[in-house]
Amino acid sequence: MLKDIQLDKSSSIYLYLQLYNQVRDLIKAGKLSPNTKLPPIRKLAKQLGVNNVTVVKGYDLLEEEELIYKKVGRGTFVAPAKKIKIEAEAADLDQQIYIDEDTKLDRAGEINFATAAPTPDLFPIAPFKKLLNKVLERDRGYAFGYQKSQGYLPLRESISNYANRYNISANPEEIQIVSGAQQGIDILAKTFLDYGDTVFVERPTYPGAISVFKSRQANIVEIPLKEDGIDITYLEAKLKEIKPKFLYLMPNFQNPTGYSYSQTKKEKLIKLADQHDLLIIEDDCLSDLNYSDQESNALKSLDKADRVIYIKSFSKIFMPGLRLAFLIIPDCYFNDILLSKYMSDIFTDGLVQRVLDLYFKEEVWEEQLIRLKETYQVRYESMIVALREYLPNQIEFAKPNGGLNIWLELPRGISASKIKDKSLKKGVNIAPGAAFYSNQPQVNKIRLSIAAVNKQEIKEGVKRLGALLQQKLNDKEDDTWDNSVLPLV
Amino acid sequence: MLKDIQLDKSSSIYLYLQLYNQVRDLIKAGKLSPNTKLPPIRKLAKQLGVNNVTVVKGYDLLEEEELIYKKVGRGTFVAPAKKIKIEAEAADLDQQIYIDEDTKLDRAGEINFATAAPTPDLFPIAPFKKLLNKVLERDRGYAFGYQKSQGYLPLRESISNYANRYNISANPEEIQIVSGAQQGIDILAKTFLDYGDTVFVERPTYPGAISVFKSRQANIVEIPLKEDGIDITYLEAKLKEIKPKFLYLMPNFQNPTGYSYSQTKKEKLIKLADQHDLLIIEDDCLSDLNYSDQESNALKSLDKADRVIYIKSFSKIFMPGLRLAFLIIPDCYFNDILLSKYMSDIFTDGLVQRVLDLYFKEEVWEEQLIRLKETYQVRYESMIVALREYLPNQIEFAKPNGGLNIWLELPRGISASKIKDKSLKKGVNIAPGAAFYSNQPQVNKIRLSIAAVNKQEIKEGVKRLGALLQQKLNDKEDDTWDNSVLPLV
Repeated sequence: MLKDIQLDKSSSIYLYLQLYNQVRDLIKAGKLSPNTKLPPIRKLAKQLGVNNVTVVKGYDLLEEEELIYKKVGRGTFVAPAKKIKIEAEAADLDQQIYIDEDTKLDRAGEINFATAAPTPDLFPIAPFKKLLNKVLERDRGYAFGYQKSQGYLPLRESISNYANRYNISANPEEIQIVSGAQQGIDILAKTFLDYGDTVFVERPTYPGAISVFKSRQANIVEIPLKEDGIDITYLEAKLKEIKPKFLYLMPNFQNPTGYSYSQTKKEKLIKLADQHDLLIIEDDCLSDLNYSDQESNALKSLDKADRVIYIKSFSKIFMPGLRLAFLIIPDCYFNDILLSKYMSDIFTDGLVQRVLDLYFKEEVWEEQLIRLKETYQVRYESMIVALREYLPNQIEFAKPNGGLNIWLELPRGISASKIKDKSLKKGVNIAPGAAFYSNQPQVNKIRLSIAAVNKQEIKEGVKRLGALLQQKLNDKEDDTWDNSVLPLV
Repeated sequence: MLKDIQLDKSSSIYLYLQLYNQVRDLIKAGKLSPNTKLPPIRKLAKQLGVNNVTVVKGYDLLEEEELIYKKVGRGTFVAPAKKIKIEAEAADLDQQIYIDEDTKLDRAGEINFATAAPTPDLFPIAPFKKLLNKVLERDRGYAFGYQKSQGYLPLRESISNYANRYNISANPEEIQIVSGAQQGIDILAKTFLDYGDTVFVERPTYPGAISVFKSRQANIVEIPLKEDGIDITYLEAKLKEIKPKFLYLMPNFQNPTGYSYSQTKKEKLIKLADQHDLLIIEDDCLSDLNYSDQESNALKSLDKADRVIYIKSFSKIFMPGLRLAFLIIPDCYFNDILLSKYMSDIFTDGLVQRVLDLYFKEEVWEEQLIRLKETYQVRYESMIVALREYLPNQIEFAKPNGGLNIWLELPRGISASKIKDKSLKKGVNIAPGAAFYSNQPQVNKIRLSIAAVNKQEIKEGVKRLGALLQQKLNDKEDDTWDNSVLPLV
């Protein structure tokens, strides 16, 4: 079948992408059966009259999308057809939902690396109570009245000043208050996505976004994320293929990976957006938690041509249980998005908006942020130390400059979901990687979060996890661990 | 063209409905041009070999959908094609949005019959403040922690008890907390509606529901609402034509009309739902505000076969600015709806849920409801008295048994939107009827709400409105008021 492949060297589409497209089509059409062996790289390169690298890159893409898999020393094979049904996906997602809800309140004694939701003890109650009562004294019933759908104007003014400190210029008229970042994503999906539209996301990405885009029946294209940001070459190639309604991304301390875009990548991305008239949705929930001295500027701060819609959540840094976030929206989209906000819940709780406004105005905000950052940084450093001490050497992870998440890569063939089952029995909860991909494949990735664990728990939890993984690896060396049929990612 | 019409007397579809369908198709296909005169009733009845009543009913339906219009003494004509674009609808809706936001805070001095959002002075702040601080003392940081998507369990238990008093049996597991009734509608639409699905609504209905259904690209079928409830015959006929995903309705003190379903109609409806496997969404925001001694029981209280999903908002009776409502959901739909809730905003503000729970537990709830009902009832009775005193006799309205809204019917041909423009100049704001219909036609209906006006304002406002309408009617008698081209509804 591969004999039918013909690459057009005069085309503007990269040769490796042409190869990838044609093989993918053959697989999807069933013309290449599962477990068919593909030609070795050199042989195919010779046959097509191209460089070996072209075939390597083409195969890499196919492997990335789990259309093929490799067996060391044996070659490359077509992956078994996916039989994931919508129902199964929903069930998986359903499980995923509760990751953020497994707080200590529910499972006493468990060490919870699964949730990125901070525990309540991190947030000082006294200033909140003081400011809440101040609002009640000042505004009385108006604190409970119907609010403008756009949000409480004084808060929008405070946010405008706040954004300015991050070199984001946004006047209060461009700011839309929403009930948390999840609602922000939902509202943007309502505004931009209809049946069959395409949206680009990072791979892996936030599952709450994936599920919203699926609910709008959108076609989701995942663009691989590297340690220094999204794969620009892949993105550019995909943009030549299809124009998405938007690209959803998290440039700083990404969820789940913790990766941040390099300044060069941020600039390239803005340039690409200009060239391709690409709308970018920047979800920024963690950039405040920067433990390094490297700047973590927002893509929005580089946006001169209204290419970026910016979402900022306060869940991780204000009060997680109060649903509050804001969007910065270029003027041309404003009315449509306002309408979507109205349809979603008319307006966001006015009382909480007023309290947050006082957090900014009375400078409690800055104080709380510094305190939180210190706490998280201690946890984060404990986590890195523990991982280095207790994890088997074969397990890789990048050390992010900030945020709440660390992304572990297990040796190929080890299913993170199975590890989760085992670690739960040891009293340690983790987030297996599958949830962060559009089609929830078996993957050898794990997200560990420091939001709900203290220093002691981190040490103890990683120790247990490390022992478990070491045992798995030993088993593997005893060859009882079967990885032959798993697609490798 | 009408010569091609053939009715099939052996069909199970009513003859008048067959006639309606065929004429509608001819009009929509452009085979009958605008302003074409249709045959007189007797002539067409004779041609088709049917009873006159069949043609009358067929024509009535066509007129109801504004496909034809009548000129007194001249006959029946095809209506001009509608040129309403999505953009234009959005703009209209956009205007509509702000109906509920024109609070006194914004337009001092204006008498606002347009908004159904209660003014903040109606809600005593002291008990709220007391209970809020109690929650903060008791739960500390947990009041701000992440919450279960389903909602705070003690509140769900309180609601279960509360529902019991209204003969609705719902265990806490069947209750889903949402951030206001609008979100409830949005979540249900997300769960049940995809591109091209059909949904039935009352005609007229709540515009926030219409816009959500349109956003899911659903096909909206409006079923006429009468003073004693939905038109069951019409509904049944439509059910034979097409199976909707659900029927959305408000059986008590409907918005905008104030109409309530008779007990007979409620029972018929439940029976019909059983026969046609019809899912009903019952939106109950005002049944607590019953000023009569007639029971205003929920459809849900009659539901034995899990046909009804129940939405109850607290906006009009607890604190309007706090987004809080609940759904009662038959078990079979629960997981799908929970997923939609998660996608919408993950969970509803936990602090407010805890405070509301104490409202129930400490019996502040009952107290506040009694107080509010008294206030609204005084306003309501002032409204009826004022309408009887100041409105021209030609203007009709039903006297509802409760709620916040009164629905005026102006003499045919008077556009409510134009009246609104004029009454605003006199310092009186009203809600013209157009917003409450799916395609926002010019209509001769007005919704007057008592939520944001006191006794004195009601008297003064109705006096001004009455004078304005009298003047209009006088102008009309001078024949300067042109109603010849308006479709009559």
